[in-house]
Amino acid sequence: MSANNPLVSDRNVEFLLYEVFDAEALCRLPAYEEHSRETFDLVLQTARKFAREVLFPTYKAMDEAPAHMEGGGIKVHPLMKQLFPKLVEQGGVAMTRPHEVGGQQLPHTVATLVALYGMAANLSAVSYIGLTAGAAHLIETFGSEALKAEMMTRMYSGEWTGTMALTEPHAGSSLTDVKTTATPTAHGYHMLRGNKVFISGGDQDLTANIVHLALARIDGAPPGIKGVSLFAVPKLRVQEGKLVANDVQCAGAFHKMGWRGIPSIALNFGENDDCRGWLVGEPHRGISQMFQMMNEARLMVGMQGIATASVAYHEALEYARTRPQGRPLGSKNPSRPQVPIIEHADVRRMLLRQKAIVEGSLSLGVQAARYADLAAHAATPEERRRAFLLLEMMTPVVKSFAAEKGFESNALAVQVHGGYGYTSEYLPEAWLRDQKLNSIHEGTTCMHSMDLLGRKVVADQGGALRLLGDEIGVTVRRAAAAGLDAGLGSAIERAMALVGEVTMGLASLGLGGRVEEMMRHSVDYLDMFSTVVISWQWLLQAAVAREKLAGAPSAPSAELYEGKVCTAEYWIKTELPRVDHLAQLCRSGEDSYVRMNPGWF
Amino acid sequence: MSANNPLVSDRNVEFLLYEVFDAEALCRLPAYEEHSRETFDLVLQTARKFAREVLFPTYKAMDEAPAHMEGGGIKVHPLMKQLFPKLVEQGGVAMTRPHEVGGQQLPHTVATLVALYGMAANLSAVSYIGLTAGAAHLIETFGSEALKAEMMTRMYSGEWTGTMALTEPHAGSSLTDVKTTATPTAHGYHMLRGNKVFISGGDQDLTANIVHLALARIDGAPPGIKGVSLFAVPKLRVQEGKLVANDVQCAGAFHKMGWRGIPSIALNFGENDDCRGWLVGEPHRGISQMFQMMNEARLMVGMQGIATASVAYHEALEYARTRPQGRPLGSKNPSRPQVPIIEHADVRRMLLRQKAIVEGSLSLGVQAARYADLAAHAATPEERRRAFLLLEMMTPVVKSFAAEKGFESNALAVQVHGGYGYTSEYLPEAWLRDQKLNSIHEGTTCMHSMDLLGRKVVADQGGALRLLGDEIGVTVRRAAAAGLDAGLGSAIERAMALVGEVTMGLASLGLGGRVEEMMRHSVDYLDMFSTVVISWQWLLQAAVAREKLAGAPSAPSAELYEGKVCTAEYWIKTELPRVDHLAQLCRSGEDSYVRMNPGWF
Repeated sequence: MSANNPLVSDRNVEFLLYEVFDAEALCRLPAYEEHSRETFDLVLQTARKFAREVLFPTYKAMDEAPAHMEGGGIKVHPLMKQLFPKLVEQGGVAMTRPHEVGGQQLPHTVATLVALYGMAANLSAVSYIGLTAGAAHLIETFGSEALKAEMMTRMYSGEWTGTMALTEPHAGSSLTDVKTTATPTAHGYHMLRGNKVFISGGDQDLTANIVHLALARIDGAPPGIKGVSLFAVPKLRVQEGKLVANDVQCAGAFHKMGWRGIPSIALNFGENDDCRGWLVGEPHRGISQMFQMMNEARLMVGMQGIATASVAYHEALEYARTRPQGRPLGSKNPSRPQVPIIEHADVRRMLLRQKAIVEGSLSLGVQAARYADLAAHAATPEERRRAFLLLEMMTPVVKSFAAEKGFESNALAVQVHGGYGYTSEYLPEAWLRDQKLNSIHEGTTCMHSMDLLGRKVVADQGGALRLLGDEIGVTVRRAAAAGLDAGLGSAIERAMALVGEVTMGLASLGLGGRVEEMMRHSVDYLDMFSTVVISWQWLLQAAVAREKLAGAPSAPSAELYEGKVCTAEYWIKTELPRVDHLAQLCRSGEDSYVRMNPGWF
Repeated sequence: MSANNPLVSDRNVEFLLYEVFDAEALCRLPAYEEHSRETFDLVLQTARKFAREVLFPTYKAMDEAPAHMEGGGIKVHPLMKQLFPKLVEQGGVAMTRPHEVGGQQLPHTVATLVALYGMAANLSAVSYIGLTAGAAHLIETFGSEALKAEMMTRMYSGEWTGTMALTEPHAGSSLTDVKTTATPTAHGYHMLRGNKVFISGGDQDLTANIVHLALARIDGAPPGIKGVSLFAVPKLRVQEGKLVANDVQCAGAFHKMGWRGIPSIALNFGENDDCRGWLVGEPHRGISQMFQMMNEARLMVGMQGIATASVAYHEALEYARTRPQGRPLGSKNPSRPQVPIIEHADVRRMLLRQKAIVEGSLSLGVQAARYADLAAHAATPEERRRAFLLLEMMTPVVKSFAAEKGFESNALAVQVHGGYGYTSEYLPEAWLRDQKLNSIHEGTTCMHSMDLLGRKVVADQGGALRLLGDEIGVTVRRAAAAGLDAGLGSAIERAMALVGEVTMGLASLGLGGRVEEMMRHSVDYLDMFSTVVISWQWLLQAAVAREKLAGAPSAPSAELYEGKVCTAEYWIKTELPRVDHLAQLCRSGEDSYVRMNPGWF
């Protein structure tokens, strides 16, 4: 690994936070009035230093020796035991939560970027924190005061960790088929029985206890998704003031190609009929309540994908700047010295594509975080509603774009390293392995495409999509005013109009009961939609950069701004045109894979 | 792994060999007159059985415990020691070589498919054989009688193995910078000194000896590529009738993410000034001679990529047919049983895309092998020249398409498996890791794009490209006569005309000395060209299938043919249209990554 790898560009974070998304303006909202640029910078600076000096040096060792089963439980990497208390001390668990539950009440806009450094440095290590935060937040929102006092406070303080326990062996993505049962008792808890798989952090030897936020069916519940309830199922329960075993068995660890520092395990509840779970919120509302954590987890996975692409991009960039090989086309004199490979056009193409993916998706990630802040704390209900709809629509894009294009970006980082790239003497191959999980866990890309097309863009009778059109319109006018090539903005507006037409056409198929036809090209739809959204984010960044360039910036800032404009041109000219073909596929209802009889394969 | 995984579809092999490419016709050429469909089938049948029953069960163990350094040399996996003599016994080393050197003189058209099964079963195991074959063939073509007697015969018989030793630490792809030196002596050999890296099979404890076909500069040679010579450098040399150490040191093994059964090592020649090498062919002609082995290796890597995508596709297909999960859109009744995931449109999309990539590239691989047979043995010099030009043009496509789209295909196989896909309890993640090497070793994708655009398509003043146009024209007319949708053929002809225009435009830039501009989008050019070529192969397969369907075939055959037609439609309607955008990029000279100053990243 390169000692010069910054993981994430500080200057780009500053650009996004203060120049593009005006994080300081958030401090005018009552929820964030105690914050200022100074507190933001302080938290960021601490996170950077910790990520670079403490977390990053542990990554390779944790990848090479994964957490594993031993004596009926999981042993994490010894380094993880040193890291965990430090991660807790950094305040990651309750960073965005209100003061009254012990949090720092930091805007998501800032917290997302703070977390990004840790994710880029060692994604598995920080995900113990992220999962605990999400699980505790579920109890905070839906749990009883008793649960909050007993569990949530210990989770926010890092004394215990938390997980989400949804998936079962027979029904990976099909939550309607959850079979774990919950039998009521007269004592205020339920007896749980069932099997869960792919539970990240489902066991560890880091903390005294773990609270699983688990889906189960109360006896007699209606079939399907409307009969699923949410329970807090601790590994150890408090009984007579002591922690005693709660019949939660660790049944085995999966051997994963990536994210190897945090175990993914199979859990059995109630093998000895002694597993107690406490209902969180209302009976049969488990899925809709769990969506709070699922949405947070989706954005988190999206940011993990961006972080993983970012660290690899910076590694490739450093390699390309320092590795001499070959000579420019047209001046092949072998007696001249070789040039750094960044001088070769195709290496620059691969780097520019990585930059476009990393910084384009990061901009969207911060945009989404800002919507999250406004959805919770904007001044008026209208503003909150508007931000909520936009956040909902961006969530599948952040998650899936980072996973799919991030994987392409990580593969390019391997390619830039040549033969060294596929060896574990260098890190890009490990990050490529990490990235591959992100298109599957927290919902596959197909599921997110159906979420986007079937729910999000049609929300509010198409109002959500119109809101996005408005946002894009504002950016296009700003770009024109800043003096950017008008062709860039008009290409995006044309593409967005096309998205609107395609969406109308597909929605009317759905309204006519032709749901299968509507959804047939949902993955192409997601690809098209994401391409337009990322193009919008690039136009926004380029518009800001062009405005700043007009103000005679310092030389290093000018380089950043020039790079932003050039990358925006690259993406909009070379990637956005794919939208036409994707729209055509969505509209034509091209049906080869529908007609393809299973026997024809 | 699935016990039902066929690795490669037998019926598809039969279709390609006898129905599409008429391998029996090759038996009318004098070189192959001793062969018949019976001998072809016999060899194929033996290879299948061996691949499924012997090779495939060893794959996972060899991936998990890679060949490694121990006591100054490489220890291969114990299973490899059992496999190697059996692989030799299968006749793989000299399968296509003439009887007079101990070969079976089998057409490449057949041998390629024979080899495919072994590659799909355990790619590393068979690559010891492939590398030895290529190295021995170099000595057969260019070596002295003494070298043939001493080395080649022992390599073809499997007593010794061979490698290609090109790459040096400071100059991965830049062969012009080879620094290894060769000092003449009065004894008929040279003294070699230098360092090589990434030498596949560069050491092993399988055979008594290894012959490295190495590039080096004879003292006083001209600088650059025209001063590089080819040497046979054995690990042990024959001296007074005994094998003695030849000062070839194994300096270390790379830890690779894939191809883990065959080591890739660093070699030092002449650390003790006692390394002897024997010149192969003429001085300073090393690069052009080595191209024989490089071209064979490129096709081999292409076939390895196809094989790796094939075995994963069949694993995903089997999984999708047997794994129940979820219910069809529009009939979500949770009291109904779950359906096999192949019933979901998006899973079928992912399988169809894999099929299109695997069987499209395999068809091209057989097409290229047929060109190789005709280039060597067709009746007239004109036919041989024609086949040679087409083979040359197809080589970078076979190599790179399989590597790039094969990687996408392997990622889809992981995706079809959901969470299980990223665990090593299942095999798709291992094949994904294997596939990633293929876009780098034996030349990166960018190098092949420059080879295609800068040399191959412009060969013979554009005559090579016109030959391809003729081939495509024949197929389009055949498809129309068979009654296929005429839109398919005309789309390909239109795309091919576009390729011709783009090529003319770029070639004229090159002729005008604007080489950098010509080559700027060479990777996009390769993508465009490959997409057209694979579309042609799909049209060819669909045309044959349609002809056969008219003849009232058996039910299983009819399913194969229907699948071919449907997949051809899928590829030509959903993938071929990308050509327009790629052509536009090539023609426009879009220059974002040329303008992108290294400081702007």
